[in-house]
Amino acid sequence: MEEKTLNSARLYEGKIINLRVDTVELPDKKYSKREIVEHSGAAAVVPLTMDGHVILIKQFRKPIEEIIYEIPAGRLETKETPKKCALRELAEETGYSVGTLEELVTYYPSPGFSNEVIHIFVARDLTEGTAKPDEDEYLEVMKIPLEEALKMVEDGTIKDSKTIIGLLMAERRSL
Amino acid sequence: MEEKTLNSARLYEGKIINLRVDTVELPDKKYSKREIVEHSGAAAVVPLTMDGHVILIKQFRKPIEEIIYEIPAGRLETKETPKKCALRELAEETGYSVGTLEELVTYYPSPGFSNEVIHIFVARDLTEGTAKPDEDEYLEVMKIPLEEALKMVEDGTIKDSKTIIGLLMAERRSL
Repeated sequence: MEEKTLNSARLYEGKIINLRVDTVELPDKKYSKREIVEHSGAAAVVPLTMDGHVILIKQFRKPIEEIIYEIPAGRLETKETPKKCALRELAEETGYSVGTLEELVTYYPSPGFSNEVIHIFVARDLTEGTAKPDEDEYLEVMKIPLEEALKMVEDGTIKDSKTIIGLLMAERRSL
Repeated sequence: MEEKTLNSARLYEGKIINLRVDTVELPDKKYSKREIVEHSGAAAVVPLTMDGHVILIKQFRKPIEEIIYEIPAGRLETKETPKKCALRELAEETGYSVGTLEELVTYYPSPGFSNEVIHIFVARDLTEGTAKPDEDEYLEVMKIPLEEALKMVEDGTIKDSKTIIGLLMAERRSL
């Protein structure tokens, strides 16, 4: 099933993503092109409070032209571990710092065209603090009962993959 | 929170994706660039058999250089509804045709850099037939007990967003 790379053309190198097109040899010796969006990977965190709430973020996302609900998350910086990234993004975006952090799940959002991988953690024993979002980040921090957030997954209000997967997996593990 | 587009540069138009970079005005009148991968959207289907199994596909994905498990899925063709796409992809990839099809969930895999949207359905009352995969598609069809597939989500064997979300949501609705 593997596809051998015969040629790789780098078409774009950007801030968040790169684009390349690989020419591959298929199992039956035919050829095809594969368009590949390179991404450094990301970490996300389901922040759970002692009183059964989850911290979510409302944020405008240009690609979909919508304000959506998400768990705190961000791209891995050079040589940064997923765990360190999760703690940094949670602190920057929400101000919360963390008592305990556990790995929850690692997944590929769109393996058909991108190598992006997202590592999701669960954070507990949170302490409130002051958020310091990036210069071009505008977001609203919300504290919502976990049960209500799960209803928002059920009824389609929450539409972001890491947020759906993080909330459903956190509930399955009865965290 | 909205970001007004001041300029939009189309950098690549491909088979599966396009790439553009928008210059946007932020709420405080500063500016930023947004790299956006355009995708036509996709439909996916959780195919459940009468005897409690789910039909999964094993497929090599070039961006991640891995063979992974996925539910049947594919891109929307021009003017194709998500429902029609789900039925077509299920038939092409697995050969199964469907008695009943229900909407399960619609989500954004990577709203930070892509407008891709995936519509997931649940299919029941399946009838076996002959698969007709695309020319450049090589895949293995598998029939797995739903309980086992859910364990594969739990232990990290299943790593694809639509497959994780489809299986967890199907189980939640006790389908």
